Amino acid sequence: MTYCVAMSLDAGLIFLSDSRTNAGVDSVGVFRKMTVFENPGDRVLVLMSAGNLAISQSIRQLISKHHSADGRTIWNAASMYEAAQIVGDAVRTVYERDARALGNFGIDFNVSMILGGQIGNAPCRLFQIYSAGNFIESQSETPFLQIGEAKYGKPILDRVASPAMPLDEAAKCALISMDSTLRSNISVGMPLDLLVYESGSLAVTRFVSIDDNNQYFNMLRNSWGQQLRRVFEGIDDPVWNAAPEVTSNVLSTNAGQASRPPRVNAPPQALIHQPEPAPLQTLAESTPPNQA
Amino acid sequence: MTYCVAMSLDAGLIFLSDSRTNAGVDSVGVFRKMTVFENPGDRVLVLMSAGNLAISQSIRQLISKHHSADGRTIWNAASMYEAAQIVGDAVRTVYERDARALGNFGIDFNVSMILGGQIGNAPCRLFQIYSAGNFIESQSETPFLQIGEAKYGKPILDRVASPAMPLDEAAKCALISMDSTLRSNISVGMPLDLLVYESGSLAVTRFVSIDDNNQYFNMLRNSWGQQLRRVFEGIDDPVWNAAPEVTSNVLSTNAGQASRPPRVNAPPQALIHQPEPAPLQTLAESTPPNQA
Repeated sequence: MTYCVAMSLDAGLIFLSDSRTNAGVDSVGVFRKMTVFENPGDRVLVLMSAGNLAISQSIRQLISKHHSADGRTIWNAASMYEAAQIVGDAVRTVYERDARALGNFGIDFNVSMILGGQIGNAPCRLFQIYSAGNFIESQSETPFLQIGEAKYGKPILDRVASPAMPLDEAAKCALISMDSTLRSNISVGMPLDLLVYESGSLAVTRFVSIDDNNQYFNMLRNSWGQQLRRVFEGIDDPVWNAAPEVTSNVLSTNAGQASRPPRVNAPPQALIHQPEPAPLQTLAESTPPNQA
Repeated sequence: MTYCVAMSLDAGLIFLSDSRTNAGVDSVGVFRKMTVFENPGDRVLVLMSAGNLAISQSIRQLISKHHSADGRTIWNAASMYEAAQIVGDAVRTVYERDARALGNFGIDFNVSMILGGQIGNAPCRLFQIYSAGNFIESQSETPFLQIGEAKYGKPILDRVASPAMPLDEAAKCALISMDSTLRSNISVGMPLDLLVYESGSLAVTRFVSIDDNNQYFNMLRNSWGQQLRRVFEGIDDPVWNAAPEVTSNVLSTNAGQASRPPRVNAPPQALIHQPEPAPLQTLAESTPPNQA
């Protein structure tokens, strides 16, 4: 699998991708998922891909060609929207060519891409392109897009990501999101490619390939893990069955009816065939209503 | 969807489930996913389910019956392993009855269950049962099991869960895992059922149904969110293109070859059809090797 995350901020764009591919756990490789299309002073576009590697490489190859059928290319597209259309068209071209043959082997046509960048004086824009070649654009309410193994790293984005973040703080956020994914899912792996694009620069000025020896990323992982643990330990444990005078950290009270779990009561003792005597209980297969 | 998490600890067992079901976002309901089988002094078993609600209710109904074909029931099973087999058999019985009819409508036979508890003097045990009726048991290296929307809440478990945790600390951990899931996935919802089982008690002593007004859970969510944000802000931003004398928080250096992204170079200017002049660049469709 793959994990890629991108963020669209007032100050620019963040792109972060892992580099692990696998065809089963016995066939694991390093393939970088990020590709940069740069014509300094004119445009910078960044493409990240997840899903079937053969499909995404074919799409990249098509996009890299200088001329499409109608003369539009990623190098002369007038807007990021048009560039996203060109990528979507390439997805559909590869679908026409490969989907049936893949289907013969029970393989879905599975690819997803993130395309972001800036062309000329227009604002930065960020798109996610699906297997059908259709696409969505990020908006300020949800300034990030994810493809691949997105769930592990989503909570930290949900909690802290906002368009007003400075670029380096957003890069830190993306790296923490990646760290959570790396820890929880072996199909996502180092090295990482991080590109931070400053709006208006029309050139790649901040890119780093992060490996196991990267000082900042190692500091970040250790600090985050340790401090998360410290925060966890610092939060009080719950108070159960609290008396009325206890008013702090109350998880449950002893006042009135305590809440009860949905339960199946034990059948009459004679049906259990247990030697140990126990009081006869009424039979109830259904769940009593919650009395919390 | 659903999120359920259980933990097997030296001191006992933790069970936590949400209560949201949905058949499309326009059909959302509250169904509790936890069922308790309790014969005080003899046994306590807790079952949690995820997947197709009709399937999991049918399985629960079968298990609740007093007699199975061979006379074994959850009430007279000699061990937790045997109880897990009884649940697995019930899964297979429902499969035989319903899977073909569901298949006619393109619906997979999709169910997963967690069963944990204690019978007599034997140790607590915790199992996960799959759609095929087979099952696995948790072990000390991975003291938790999850079903349903498991990914959002896995990072905190990976970071802090260990068998030596006190029960209330483990409950806190499960609640944080649930909070991350609630925030990131609308298909998981309140109220929550939390059951903390103390080894040897052979009775349900700590259960609470947690709704939006629960004081402890609201404190936990707020504290965790705020302190996570504080930890995030407290971690230094990266230093880019650091000079040799900078030795702290270095994300990339300016020494030697800086790392470069995989890139597609712009074609010769004549092919771009852009009015703006730019230096002629060599054509390279392939990705240069990473020089980091």
